[in-house]
Formats: sequence, C-alpha cells, structure tokens
Amino acid sequence: MSEFTIRRADEEDKEEIYRMCVVNICATLRQKELAKFSDDVVTTTPESLRRDRKFYESFVVEASPNTDAASKSLIGYALYYYSFSSWDGRSAFLNDIYVCPKHRGKGIGSTLLKRVAQDVVENGCVLLEWCVLNYNTSAIEFYKSKGAIDLTETDRIHVYRLPTESLEKLAK
Amino acid sequence: MSEFTIRRADEEDKEEIYRMCVVNICATLRQKELAKFSDDVVTTTPESLRRDRKFYESFVVEASPNTDAASKSLIGYALYYYSFSSWDGRSAFLNDIYVCPKHRGKGIGSTLLKRVAQDVVENGCVLLEWCVLNYNTSAIEFYKSKGAIDLTETDRIHVYRLPTESLEKLAK
Repeated sequence: MSEFTIRRADEEDKEEIYRMCVVNICATLRQKELAKFSDDVVTTTPESLRRDRKFYESFVVEASPNTDAASKSLIGYALYYYSFSSWDGRSAFLNDIYVCPKHRGKGIGSTLLKRVAQDVVENGCVLLEWCVLNYNTSAIEFYKSKGAIDLTETDRIHVYRLPTESLEKLAK
Repeated sequence: MSEFTIRRADEEDKEEIYRMCVVNICATLRQKELAKFSDDVVTTTPESLRRDRKFYESFVVEASPNTDAASKSLIGYALYYYSFSSWDGRSAFLNDIYVCPKHRGKGIGSTLLKRVAQDVVENGCVLLEWCVLNYNTSAIEFYKSKGAIDLTETDRIHVYRLPTESLEKLAK
C-alpha cells in the first residue's frame, strides 16, 4: 500500500498549504544565507490564498493514515497556474513543488510532478515551466531526470521583475 | 496630437497580433543567429490565438490615421496574463511587448508598458515579471529604466522548461 495520497487541494487545506509555503520559503532563504529572515517577507496569508484560489491550481499530499495518523497534516503540495505563450500556446507554470524533508526519498515529488503534468496535459498545455534557484542542486538533478531544460543556460533567458513600488509608480 | 493610440485588443486583431508575433520571434531568432529559422517553429496560429483568448490579455497600438492611414495595420502589441506567487500573491507575467522597428524611439513602448502596469495594478497585482534574452541589451536598458530587477543576476533564478515530449511522457 502506498504511504501517501495525492488529491486536489480544497478550501480546508489553505492553512496547511500556507504553513508549507512559509517552511519552503524559509528553507530557500536559508540557502541564500539571509540569516535575518523572518516570515514577514511572505505577504500572502491563509486568507489571501483562500480569496485568490481561482488564480491557481493546487494538489496536496496526505500521509496515509497508518503512517502519520497523529498529525493528519499534509506532507507536500504543488501550486501552479495556467500561462500562455504567443509562440507555443497554452502552457502552465509550476510555482511550487514541496515535500516535507522527513518524507523525501519515497518518490512523492515524482508522483506529485506527474499528477501536475497529467492535469496540465488534460487541459491542453504544451509546456510546463518553472523557476529554480541555481544553487538548489538536488532539485535541478530531479528536474533534469524528468527531461527539463535549463533555458537560462541554453538560451540565456533571464527573469525580470518590476517590484510593487516600481509597478505602482509606472501605473500612475 | 499623439501619433498613436493604445487600446485593448479585440477579436479582429488576432491576425495582426499573430503577424507581429512572428516578426518578433524572427527577430529574436536572428539575434540568436539561428539562420535556418522558418516560421514553422511558431506553433500558434491566428485561430489558436482567437480560441485561447481567455488565457491572456492584450493591448495593441494603432498608428493615428494621419500617420499610417494607408495600411491601417497595428504597429505594436503587449500580451500578458495573470500569474500567482505563493510568496507574493496575485501577479502578472508579460509574455511580449513589441513595437515595429520603424515606430521605435517615440515613447510607444513606455506608454504600452505603462498601460499594462495600470491594468494589472487595477486588477490587484503586486508584481509584473517577464523573461528577456540576456543579449537584448536595448530591451534590458529600457526595462531597467522602469525600475526592473534582473532576478537571474541578483538571485541566480533560472528558468526551466519541460518541453511537450517530456511533459507528455511524464503524464503517461
């Protein structure tokens, strides 16, 4: 019997998804050696995740009852949304894929990514894209094993951002 | 009087947007010195842009009648969609911003980007992001003048893609 179950996220999962987002982001920032990090930099909240739920899709991972019955908490999630390329057409962007550290090495990440791939293919997407911090070598190894290409390496594609202040200034 | 007008794209603009997409992509590929390029690599069509119109937003630029009355063709466009970040919340992604070469240097790109910024801010977005080929120095200079940050440079963010074949294989 599998030790985990993947299902589409529902309304009740937002607190747990938020908890994992924060843990995930903290781990990322630790990698970046931003020692003074506090979770203030996360501007979303469980409430905003609930309010904005029509803007993204999400799957969550539950431990099967016999392995983690005490907590009933979720042990992973994937969050993605539909995107569009004038060149390729309908696509999807994977914002997060996360498995709690103590549950890694069991194939949960692979199964979760496969479930996302199935969903986006069923919905007519021809590509799945995402961003990775280039020093996250274990994630990169995992993605490459699935056939992913590093477009920054092959095509020198850089990601640009207009942060809130500059965006609002430009909009005036 | 302004030499151009920016308006939201409508149903009839898809052929013209497609034409500019192809021109834009050709120019990009020439920059990449892919001499053997043909427009076969563009898998979208005017028809697919029409069919998928609910997946993106678009503004187009018209030359004012007295400057380009003969052709009545569009001279630029911006194509973007709403995205979502578990860290920041509702965001937008600018897939294309394009002004025909002979109409550059008149502030059309700035006005177009401003119009996109206004629209996404009105719709609750806190960020605008996009990708740039790192050798497109004139575009980079333009973006930086608006306050954009190169996340690949500052945070070593790389873009990964699962192309159609790998995506479909994973989904099986």
